[in-house]
Amino acid sequence: MSDMQILDTAQAQSPEALVATLAHAGRAAQVALARLTDAEKSAALLAAADALRAAAPEVLAANALDMAAGTARGLSGALLDRLRLDDGRLAGIADALATVATLADPVGQVISADTRPNGLALSRVRVPIGLIGIIYESRPNVTADAAALCLRSGNAVLLRGGTEAVHSNRAIHAALVRGLVARGVPEAAVQLMPTQDRAAVGAMLTAAGLIDMIVPRGGKSLVERVQKDARVPVLAHLDGICHTYIHASADPQMAQSIALNAKMRRTGICGSMETLLLDAAFPASQAVVAALLDAGCELRGDPRAASLDPRIGAASAQDWDTEYLDAILSVAVVDGLEAAIDHIARHSSHHTDAIVTGDDAVAEEFLARVDSAIVMVNASTQFADGGEFGLGAEIGIATGRLHARGPVALEGLTTYKWQIRGTGQVRP
Amino acid sequence: MSDMQILDTAQAQSPEALVATLAHAGRAAQVALARLTDAEKSAALLAAADALRAAAPEVLAANALDMAAGTARGLSGALLDRLRLDDGRLAGIADALATVATLADPVGQVISADTRPNGLALSRVRVPIGLIGIIYESRPNVTADAAALCLRSGNAVLLRGGTEAVHSNRAIHAALVRGLVARGVPEAAVQLMPTQDRAAVGAMLTAAGLIDMIVPRGGKSLVERVQKDARVPVLAHLDGICHTYIHASADPQMAQSIALNAKMRRTGICGSMETLLLDAAFPASQAVVAALLDAGCELRGDPRAASLDPRIGAASAQDWDTEYLDAILSVAVVDGLEAAIDHIARHSSHHTDAIVTGDDAVAEEFLARVDSAIVMVNASTQFADGGEFGLGAEIGIATGRLHARGPVALEGLTTYKWQIRGTGQVRP
Repeated sequence: MSDMQILDTAQAQSPEALVATLAHAGRAAQVALARLTDAEKSAALLAAADALRAAAPEVLAANALDMAAGTARGLSGALLDRLRLDDGRLAGIADALATVATLADPVGQVISADTRPNGLALSRVRVPIGLIGIIYESRPNVTADAAALCLRSGNAVLLRGGTEAVHSNRAIHAALVRGLVARGVPEAAVQLMPTQDRAAVGAMLTAAGLIDMIVPRGGKSLVERVQKDARVPVLAHLDGICHTYIHASADPQMAQSIALNAKMRRTGICGSMETLLLDAAFPASQAVVAALLDAGCELRGDPRAASLDPRIGAASAQDWDTEYLDAILSVAVVDGLEAAIDHIARHSSHHTDAIVTGDDAVAEEFLARVDSAIVMVNASTQFADGGEFGLGAEIGIATGRLHARGPVALEGLTTYKWQIRGTGQVRP
Repeated sequence: MSDMQILDTAQAQSPEALVATLAHAGRAAQVALARLTDAEKSAALLAAADALRAAAPEVLAANALDMAAGTARGLSGALLDRLRLDDGRLAGIADALATVATLADPVGQVISADTRPNGLALSRVRVPIGLIGIIYESRPNVTADAAALCLRSGNAVLLRGGTEAVHSNRAIHAALVRGLVARGVPEAAVQLMPTQDRAAVGAMLTAAGLIDMIVPRGGKSLVERVQKDARVPVLAHLDGICHTYIHASADPQMAQSIALNAKMRRTGICGSMETLLLDAAFPASQAVVAALLDAGCELRGDPRAASLDPRIGAASAQDWDTEYLDAILSVAVVDGLEAAIDHIARHSSHHTDAIVTGDDAVAEEFLARVDSAIVMVNASTQFADGGEFGLGAEIGIATGRLHARGPVALEGLTTYKWQIRGTGQVRP
């Protein structure tokens, strides 16, 4: 179905019927997509990257429309910056498509194999999940990034981007599809929701059996709404309330450089540290907090932490559960590993938590007992990222417990089937 | 919290508050459980098996109360049979506990490991999911089976059994907990819902963040209700509409024995065949349908199938989407592999589908393209079972696509965390 046909249909149909139409087209395309070889999928992604590069004038013109509308609507500078495309950013998006083309295809990997005493040969083999729904906000690069990861892993995708980026998203989507279709990918393998009607988002969230998984990409309010209303499984993370615990045995210089980097490298990412736990027996706490304060970070401490430096304010009860995403840090002094683990259990969002220690036994205890998607020893929490983990890219960082946890890339976009090869066995 | 305290609390609290109280207790117990060694968990399960054997008189007396109440309420013979315990069945339940104690503990398994160019050492390690909710119907053995699988994989469990088995479940639960507690397992690691109030089931289903996963065990109406109302992730299967396709190249004798076994070995299990697809070019279709008819199976065919034998009735449109769980089978004649795959794609419940063929290329095509949790070549669909797959036991067969698919045992009751070991790395 062409975009124009779907637009006509969109105007005539209920949101549920529209999503069903799109989902059926996407599922049929996924079946055809699944029959392409690894090399064919890779070549199609490279063709999509080329098509996007060739479409730069149209995409930038579309983006200018979005920027003008956003400016007129009074969007914040930060939102406008997320929305803005230029030659460099567009080249980056195309390069990211080409990178995904080079990643190993997880489909077909044998997870386990066994032959039973009766001769049945069992194997579990990775297969695509099916149709993935992506619901995102103002960043138009998600249109290309998410589509590429879904396609590389054999899934069809239904994209629903933010209204402020609607022209940019349509231009990027059109270019991608041109490149993909030229290499034999069915057009409906990558679909962009043809309407910005919010009711269509609700219809996506409740399309159980039609959409196999929803990935929300955006701020906390978007993710909360998706988690609250979805009947389809959701892969998401809400908060990154990440802790760094400086153990008594930590190397003072290492503790200081890790704390500074974990908080101040980029304050707005989900892996940035939001709470620093200083062991009461760590001798260099004053130097660590001074370095943070000198770097321009506001510190809010419990009474013992506040006594370390007059520039430290008093933390409220809410501070321990706050994701600042800013140059603000809550600081507590704790009495040993147990107290640190206990604080983290009560306040962590189970995203990423770290310890700095010179004691291997303490490190292993921390790794074993802190129940977060990512637990780290002697490293900055800012490493919490699919690229840094060698996954090539990420569709998101999952803080739920099922299916996939932490940075999710291609493997998290697959499931498996059991293949059983027999020679006529019947069950006694 | 003792059972009596919880019962008092249950009478005073809203269902939501009761479930929250139970869940907090269960989660705290899980943290303590996670610190037990593999050997300690195994020994605790063996102690639970012994305690159950020792409690046989109380359990059988409790079961007699349930049987009397069920008879008075006019439960069907099939339901009463599911409910009934005797010395042999009770011994079987205890033996199953002991078997789970011997299974390999998945917790701590390293799924993947990598060292990045910057020296960060990454590993993904299996950890328990947390607190599992099991909602089940009349079979009291689920009380022990599900508890054992959850415990073996380091999870706490909140059990909510059927009202018709309430006395049996309480007696089994009390015995299990006696054995477990004697070996250092916290009492709240295995909790049985202290009320049969249906509102408490609703509260379990919506306890997102308190209960990590719900596993419904029972009939289709139970599973549908759970899937419809749950905000907590659900691991479940609805239907087993399983197909067997007899390819033109199939060995006639093998085709006949597999078809007979797949349908007639036990007709009431989810892996039993519900539709037989006969290739138009398979020369021995008459013998296969005659064998099924002679074995007492009612056949409902499309016009071509009906022409194979006068005893075959006409299938309605609904027959292709019906899980009979009885000695009834729908039969269609199809023209080749593509038509068979197409029929299965339209009507399968994605549980288990099989082909009988002498052609390896056709077999591989079928395995690759049929999108079901279990796909089989030259074997009876009745093998769809965790025990037959060598998993030792199963918590259920999942027909959803995320987290786990097909027979789910210990591994499906775990998730993973990323452990990162550094030497002071900060992100550039």
